[in-house]
Amino acid sequence: MKPGQGWVRWIEVEKPSLSNNTADVQRLEKSLMDELDTSRVRIPLSVVQTLPSRLRSWEFRAKAVVFRDRNDWRVIDLISPVSEKPILGAAIDIGTTRIEMSVLNLETGLEIAKMGFDNPQSVIGPDVLTRIHYSAKPGGLRELNRLVMDAVKQNLSLLCTANGYATEDIYIVTAAGNTAMTHLFLGIESFDIIREPYIPCTNIPDTLTARSLSLDIHANALVYLFPNIGSYFGGDLIAGILFSDLDQKEEPCLMVDVGTNAEIVVGSGEFLIACAGAAGPALEGGMSKMGMTAGPGVIDRVWVDPDTREIRFHAIEGQQPVGICGSGMIDLAAALFVSGRIDIRGKFSETACGQSLIDRDGILSFVLVEAGLSGTGEPILLSQVDLNSLTSSKAAMYTILEVIVKNTAGLEFTDLKKFYVAGTFGSFINPVSAISIGMLPDIPLSAFEVLGNSSLGGAKLLLTNPDAFDRILKIRQSITYMELNVNQEFMNMFSGAKFYPHTDAARFPSVKVS
Amino acid sequence: MKPGQGWVRWIEVEKPSLSNNTADVQRLEKSLMDELDTSRVRIPLSVVQTLPSRLRSWEFRAKAVVFRDRNDWRVIDLISPVSEKPILGAAIDIGTTRIEMSVLNLETGLEIAKMGFDNPQSVIGPDVLTRIHYSAKPGGLRELNRLVMDAVKQNLSLLCTANGYATEDIYIVTAAGNTAMTHLFLGIESFDIIREPYIPCTNIPDTLTARSLSLDIHANALVYLFPNIGSYFGGDLIAGILFSDLDQKEEPCLMVDVGTNAEIVVGSGEFLIACAGAAGPALEGGMSKMGMTAGPGVIDRVWVDPDTREIRFHAIEGQQPVGICGSGMIDLAAALFVSGRIDIRGKFSETACGQSLIDRDGILSFVLVEAGLSGTGEPILLSQVDLNSLTSSKAAMYTILEVIVKNTAGLEFTDLKKFYVAGTFGSFINPVSAISIGMLPDIPLSAFEVLGNSSLGGAKLLLTNPDAFDRILKIRQSITYMELNVNQEFMNMFSGAKFYPHTDAARFPSVKVS
Repeated sequence: MKPGQGWVRWIEVEKPSLSNNTADVQRLEKSLMDELDTSRVRIPLSVVQTLPSRLRSWEFRAKAVVFRDRNDWRVIDLISPVSEKPILGAAIDIGTTRIEMSVLNLETGLEIAKMGFDNPQSVIGPDVLTRIHYSAKPGGLRELNRLVMDAVKQNLSLLCTANGYATEDIYIVTAAGNTAMTHLFLGIESFDIIREPYIPCTNIPDTLTARSLSLDIHANALVYLFPNIGSYFGGDLIAGILFSDLDQKEEPCLMVDVGTNAEIVVGSGEFLIACAGAAGPALEGGMSKMGMTAGPGVIDRVWVDPDTREIRFHAIEGQQPVGICGSGMIDLAAALFVSGRIDIRGKFSETACGQSLIDRDGILSFVLVEAGLSGTGEPILLSQVDLNSLTSSKAAMYTILEVIVKNTAGLEFTDLKKFYVAGTFGSFINPVSAISIGMLPDIPLSAFEVLGNSSLGGAKLLLTNPDAFDRILKIRQSITYMELNVNQEFMNMFSGAKFYPHTDAARFPSVKVS
Repeated sequence: MKPGQGWVRWIEVEKPSLSNNTADVQRLEKSLMDELDTSRVRIPLSVVQTLPSRLRSWEFRAKAVVFRDRNDWRVIDLISPVSEKPILGAAIDIGTTRIEMSVLNLETGLEIAKMGFDNPQSVIGPDVLTRIHYSAKPGGLRELNRLVMDAVKQNLSLLCTANGYATEDIYIVTAAGNTAMTHLFLGIESFDIIREPYIPCTNIPDTLTARSLSLDIHANALVYLFPNIGSYFGGDLIAGILFSDLDQKEEPCLMVDVGTNAEIVVGSGEFLIACAGAAGPALEGGMSKMGMTAGPGVIDRVWVDPDTREIRFHAIEGQQPVGICGSGMIDLAAALFVSGRIDIRGKFSETACGQSLIDRDGILSFVLVEAGLSGTGEPILLSQVDLNSLTSSKAAMYTILEVIVKNTAGLEFTDLKKFYVAGTFGSFINPVSAISIGMLPDIPLSAFEVLGNSSLGGAKLLLTNPDAFDRILKIRQSITYMELNVNQEFMNMFSGAKFYPHTDAARFPSVKVS
């Protein structure tokens, strides 16, 4: 970022004289209006109260820390032009499961600290639905709000202290979460999000004072929550679009955020189409049910040994394997398929699997790790039931991609110049494996790009780039949100996608079974 | 005022449906934007937090209490459409000497209670200058601010309680005062108001939350302070212009507010010219030094008995006379002049006064009440020194009027369709007497109109009339403020005006000496 182009501006206020006896505030406003190219500036009372002496002692120069709301530019504080006091901002991804925070220096744009912690609302329930039901009980909303706010306060304080800063050094907080998490963060009644016709209380939260949220940071600090499109399309995804620059692309690109639901946006500077939310029984649970969370001993990569044709794996930190995570599952399915161990219908081939296939409680299961080599003393298996579930998930993912790219946007997969994969889960997927099983379309590997936590990325981007403010509102306004319609046509497409890689194998020219 | 046209609006929010699943806040905003004919509405977090359940229990209808700031319409609260809970506003005139308050019902526009009390900052000093000097001492500003705010809080609470209301029933406060009083009310550094080049900290205070001023009224209440034009032209005078409708007149009118300084505005819907502030040594003290404050036994009216040609007087409440107030002084001077007891140079005529004229410490004095008839045991006198002072004051007043009306606005006094006299002092002046001594111009009596406390009147008007908001900013912006230039030309005009009624007697055809 260019110094003096972010939320901290160097300003010079015209000195008063008998020929210009306009008040200090109005001369300051003029200087800010010129600097910010706006006609609307708001200055808080506490800054006004001591403005005359401060302006004069600074010889009418100052650093102005500013932020925006939908209508106005807002001054947070004025600081001595020679001050070297840190001016910080915090970006937060309010995940249902995990909350990630970054602290940035607003003058340099550099990240100076970051941390993540589990969303303490999990004690009420692991998922959004349980929490919203709880929020409707007496005191429930308040408790959920307290849980998250206390944790944010506490961790922000820890993060600042550990890095030699004070919480008062934080002037701006930008936060993105799904619609329910955003509502609970602000203490807003959330029940109608899950009750037909599925109405959030707000689509566009106002920029708020930290004080109104009892956030104990700079006295005039402002807090911005990313807007949402609806109950099932949250600010986290808008932050992701911002982070991926999808709204500024010259050619169409796609972003998929693989979480509890697969959320997909396709578009460019000219159009944005999004599809998100539960997509009927076929997709329930989505990709997230697959496998366990990554951790020591968890198998995260699986491949076929080119020489022996045996299935090889990698366990995290090289420890004895204890289970498989999502990306490992996709790798495993791909390895089994390309080596002919599962057929195009997604069923184990008894001949190809040989002794690796066992019958366990009447269900065929592929033994990836024998009991003796496993860290748990139990074999690590992929059962036909697990595989069927993965088949459904990958078919759902492909079908949704097909619906949005082909049927809705009228594009071919090959028209996509970039294919962004966001979310923690997405970070570890091997695109080759995902293509091999027909979960992702067969486009050049160079098109795939992992975004990581794009929600946090978007929140951080807004901390360093004032232009992002208008982009967010524009993204929100221009996006076409499509409810996934699980009709007969969808089910037909879905059936085709349940094959490996697809009933129409010509769509996957790069996938070879050997 | 028309019900539903003030700051309390009846709104209906579109019900949500699967085909309109916009969030509650955005549907509320739409309804408010339509109602208020604006594109900018702000809703506080506390209203948002409980909006879903409240809107639904009210079947999507509500009373919205709104107010404005320079950029936006702001919701203060939503109230059940069937609520009969009082919705009140308070108007305050923050006078240097006295503070006047009115409480109005915002739905009917009716005044339901009022009171006045002395500005407790008087313990620091009676005048603006002393207080501003004090404000620059350590803790001084805080103390001055506390004094006025505590008194306002306490009296507002008393006023509400005495009339069966709660302070929480007050949603809006509008207040007008001179520039210094406005700054001290808001706790803003004021020192540069009195230091060359005489710069207020702010010309246009923002609409503030009552909470930020620690005013203990409705939790979301807003407080509006009238803007000023400069250090010597305060919000009280802008409130007066609003109250007099000067800015909407088809033909030129004039308003004079006689206080410590004579503040004068002449204009119409097409132009506004103002002149205010200290006008050099000749005017120091202005009209306000004349006479004592009205009270029991104070002589407030004086006239010549048409039969006996004796000087008669009226003392307030018919009690034994104890002194003369300002309006009594003007009456007395007029009576003495029209009866030939003082000459055109403003000197006592020994022949005409006869025994009523005594020598006291070498100074000629006219005995209005002999010692035996006075309530103090001392005679009530008008000395030549008093008279000279009054002559200077009346001449200054006339000269300023002449400068602004003739030299600046290019009008004749007879072009003025209305001549408004504002301020407590102004309320009691007899225009016939003021014309007789040449203090006010000789225009038809029907043109004179007493406004009373026009500052409070303007503040009340804004509580009942949202259109006033834009008028205030327009008045502020369009007014031409003229510093009174006490040059040779002024002094020549002033000299002519020191005669009774004027050196050019033809200007006062109605004044006859007999």
